[in-house]
Amino acid sequence: MKEEVGYPFDQLPTEMFWTARGGGAGWSSICGTLPPAMAAIGLVVDTDTAMQLVDELFAWFIAHPFPEYQPHGEDYAKVAGDSTLCHVQVTKWLAETGYRQDGPERSDRCGGASADVAKFTVEMLNAYADNAFEAAHSPAAVVGECMACHGGEGFADTRGKETCTECHGNLPDPHPDGY
Amino acid sequence: MKEEVGYPFDQLPTEMFWTARGGGAGWSSICGTLPPAMAAIGLVVDTDTAMQLVDELFAWFIAHPFPEYQPHGEDYAKVAGDSTLCHVQVTKWLAETGYRQDGPERSDRCGGASADVAKFTVEMLNAYADNAFEAAHSPAAVVGECMACHGGEGFADTRGKETCTECHGNLPDPHPDGY
Repeated sequence: MKEEVGYPFDQLPTEMFWTARGGGAGWSSICGTLPPAMAAIGLVVDTDTAMQLVDELFAWFIAHPFPEYQPHGEDYAKVAGDSTLCHVQVTKWLAETGYRQDGPERSDRCGGASADVAKFTVEMLNAYADNAFEAAHSPAAVVGECMACHGGEGFADTRGKETCTECHGNLPDPHPDGY
Repeated sequence: MKEEVGYPFDQLPTEMFWTARGGGAGWSSICGTLPPAMAAIGLVVDTDTAMQLVDELFAWFIAHPFPEYQPHGEDYAKVAGDSTLCHVQVTKWLAETGYRQDGPERSDRCGGASADVAKFTVEMLNAYADNAFEAAHSPAAVVGECMACHGGEGFADTRGKETCTECHGNLPDPHPDGY
């Protein structure tokens, strides 16, 4: 947009998103590909639509096997992380591939994931601009099961759409003490 | 800055950060106060400095009892979440206070936390502008212990600075199978 349209898109320094890298200055919180994509979406559509598109982005992201984009013929394994978190995504990919977190292969993987997220975001925005956007992804089914009590009805003691069992294990019914 | 300086700070629509709310369109991933603060920091300092300031912001954030800002005399309990994640922060606050995730008190809490993060970020940037910035917060000590093997040396099979034991429990030495 900066190159093809110019103003006002040439007023945004991309360096403002630099610290998203490493899941937020190396903390491995949310994957650093997502906050810039969220901001790009929020820049061009109204806030209600932006919430819908980011919901679709996250639901696609947790199920997508990264890295799809491998420009130099790397042939890396593609792993779905089932999480928006850098820590979970990278740990699973390293467990599958055997590479080190501080190696060049991990950097390649995250570079590829950045390209994948940018591509999906642009395609989604283009579809929306053509009145052709339809949400095609959803949170994991377990989220609805857990949130039936823990979300709106019942306890209402937590919130979120991440796949509950990724961190909480497979809980028996009724739940044991401590959960 | 938009009001006092004008251009170029009046070129950034704050709506671009709208979807940070609810930890990213309601997914309860990273706390929605943080991506806008990260972008604000990245807008005004060089990238290396931005990484240092965001590192300090995150280390302060996980230890800060939210909400400090309670403008209407609410007298809510202040709870440190030990995590950058919306899900963890909110769940702990609800467990402490007994409120519901969909209630007005939880909204008050997150509004107060937004103010707290904005204040800390501005004070940190002002200190930096006065050549008086000094990092005063650190990740939890356990991160160094775990990452001695799991980070740089040894396995190097994961990354991050979040408090490991918040999600992984207190692991015995040697670790059991499955960790």
